[in-house]
Amino acid sequence: MRRVYMDNNATTKVADEVVEAMKPYFTEMYGNPNSLHTFGREVHPGVAKAIDQVYSAINANDDDDVIFTSCATESNNWILKSVWLDLIKNGNKNHIITTDVEHPSILATCKFLESQGVEITYLPVNSQGSISVEDVKSAVREDTALISVMMANNETGAIFPIKEIGEIAKERDILFHTDAVQAVGKIPVDVQDLGVDFLSMSAHKFHGPKGIGALYIRKGKRITPLFHGGSQMGGHRSGTLNTPYIVGMGKAIEMAIQSLPKMDSEVRKLRDKLEDALLEIPDTFVVGERDQRTPNTILISVKGVEGEGMLWDLDKRFGIAAATGSACASEDLEANPVLEAIGAEKDLAHTAIRLSLSRYTTEDEVDYVIEKFRASVERLRAISSSYSKVKPQNI
Amino acid sequence: MRRVYMDNNATTKVADEVVEAMKPYFTEMYGNPNSLHTFGREVHPGVAKAIDQVYSAINANDDDDVIFTSCATESNNWILKSVWLDLIKNGNKNHIITTDVEHPSILATCKFLESQGVEITYLPVNSQGSISVEDVKSAVREDTALISVMMANNETGAIFPIKEIGEIAKERDILFHTDAVQAVGKIPVDVQDLGVDFLSMSAHKFHGPKGIGALYIRKGKRITPLFHGGSQMGGHRSGTLNTPYIVGMGKAIEMAIQSLPKMDSEVRKLRDKLEDALLEIPDTFVVGERDQRTPNTILISVKGVEGEGMLWDLDKRFGIAAATGSACASEDLEANPVLEAIGAEKDLAHTAIRLSLSRYTTEDEVDYVIEKFRASVERLRAISSSYSKVKPQNI
Repeated sequence: MRRVYMDNNATTKVADEVVEAMKPYFTEMYGNPNSLHTFGREVHPGVAKAIDQVYSAINANDDDDVIFTSCATESNNWILKSVWLDLIKNGNKNHIITTDVEHPSILATCKFLESQGVEITYLPVNSQGSISVEDVKSAVREDTALISVMMANNETGAIFPIKEIGEIAKERDILFHTDAVQAVGKIPVDVQDLGVDFLSMSAHKFHGPKGIGALYIRKGKRITPLFHGGSQMGGHRSGTLNTPYIVGMGKAIEMAIQSLPKMDSEVRKLRDKLEDALLEIPDTFVVGERDQRTPNTILISVKGVEGEGMLWDLDKRFGIAAATGSACASEDLEANPVLEAIGAEKDLAHTAIRLSLSRYTTEDEVDYVIEKFRASVERLRAISSSYSKVKPQNI
Repeated sequence: MRRVYMDNNATTKVADEVVEAMKPYFTEMYGNPNSLHTFGREVHPGVAKAIDQVYSAINANDDDDVIFTSCATESNNWILKSVWLDLIKNGNKNHIITTDVEHPSILATCKFLESQGVEITYLPVNSQGSISVEDVKSAVREDTALISVMMANNETGAIFPIKEIGEIAKERDILFHTDAVQAVGKIPVDVQDLGVDFLSMSAHKFHGPKGIGALYIRKGKRITPLFHGGSQMGGHRSGTLNTPYIVGMGKAIEMAIQSLPKMDSEVRKLRDKLEDALLEIPDTFVVGERDQRTPNTILISVKGVEGEGMLWDLDKRFGIAAATGSACASEDLEANPVLEAIGAEKDLAHTAIRLSLSRYTTEDEVDYVIEKFRASVERLRAISSSYSKVKPQNI
């Protein structure tokens, strides 16, 4: 059976060039970069190049820090827990602002911090799946230690007003973090322009390997490490450097940045073609304006069709990989949290299907998905107990 | 120039079979294992096999947990910080027992916990570089939350009396963790026999990749996660699974366990041959009895010769990679902490050279190192300002 991967917001295929770049670091240049001998020192140029590639990709200054982590979940836990330790537990702040629709690594960490006495404000999203800068402004308190708002939403692709929030944070002298996991490689990410203090990213969302991410730290914003130990990475994050993956992430981010024009033109066109075609199916809607979304993402609600059933049908009958929402929560079979957050009716919150393209997606694949998606909706609506009862409406 | 790698306690070459096992998970089976579609589900058997391989390697029970982490530094930070949160900050304990010679990821984390008010007892080592069970017993207090003692020392290879310490911990109802990074793959590690509650390990010490480790957690010993998020690994450790490295670590530990007899015979014989030959050089001594050490390790002190100078000479002139101690601290150029801990004279604490073999070390390499090590000592002693002043003595 043909296989079409339309779940690139969950994870991506590692680019061949990335695999090629990593290969020598497993069996030839396998030294520990902290070792003083040649086996250790010969990996330095590769690591240095990767660091340059990441700095350049997000326009970090030389005196900013970009620390490699094992994933964005680590980056997100690190920034939240450090702010807790530095400014809340051992300081005089007690409040963090975030949103209802952050990635679970932010939301679950916030729940944990609440259990330790921290007060958290979760901002709601509007019907476009975005948040309001005014809401951020209103939520700010004297004891606000951190604002953490994602740059682009994993489910809808909605792009959040990070630069504007950054201005509020700067005015009030509040630390500002953005989880840019779904932005890097899809839209331009410039830490100078955005004015963020901290930014999380993850290589496996842009055709790098799973198991490596980074945290950008603006110059002078020193935070308590999550990993104490041998003082690797300037003491920010201990642990033997994962040299193959560091080299791979460097290559992957360089390629992703070079592909941004393609993302914004070809991938966007394919996404729009797919979206136009799917919206021709009656009783469907897509969350968010196209130009306010990452160019590869569609979260579509198909009335009368359970998301999981649809996903199963697309997968089993047609070899198409889609998602109902975040892969991290996909085993829960719960209502889509973004659809819930935007206030969709309860029966709609279970009807979301996310299709996410990549720079490797072809027009032929899009045509195939259009055809099979229609067929699947037709079949599932025919056997749906709820669809006949659905009345067309505008949302 | 010939290259001989004798620094396998710092890190190891990834085995070809491990690279082979990982390969398909980068570009073919690249799905997120949390995804519901075929791309996600097809990686499950590989991950399940790796889990089985790790469980089997350390004789874990089915109802114990083995959680993949990004390295032993993460495992060690996790267990210490969780005990702090669970039993100290949010409980009524306030004391942790460890040793002077733990890996920096334990020692630096303990220093951090001290800054948060935790009391730590650091047990000294004796002249053999080992610790006394009696010392552990004496250090136990009513409010002791955790004992954390490494299974084998990274610098000397000294094997610590984990089973006996485990009995004390169990008697007093104290949690017991061992950092077994330098033990796994070198000597048998059986969590049932050892009676440990938690055990850290790292794949890159046994010919797996850098950037993956694990924490063994005995059934019923639930600890607060270090990574909150999407509830991967039963909620113990969130973050997208690093499927290639998980598969690689499974393969690597299986191979390491299969090679234990070789470690105990051939590698041990080569180590002993090397050690015998080096000890023929006047004014040298090796820390610890051979049968109390991992079979691959020699920490030799060469009077009158600076460890760093020796390391440099071996590397530059002969292509031999050795270490002065832990790679994690190698950039500090400080006195060897184990030699300091065993109470060696101050000028000796800078004379340590660690040679660590692997199952890939050949007799020919050992012969080469013997010849070049002698040559290096000769040359360096000839130009040493301190050697002429050194008087032979027994230590």
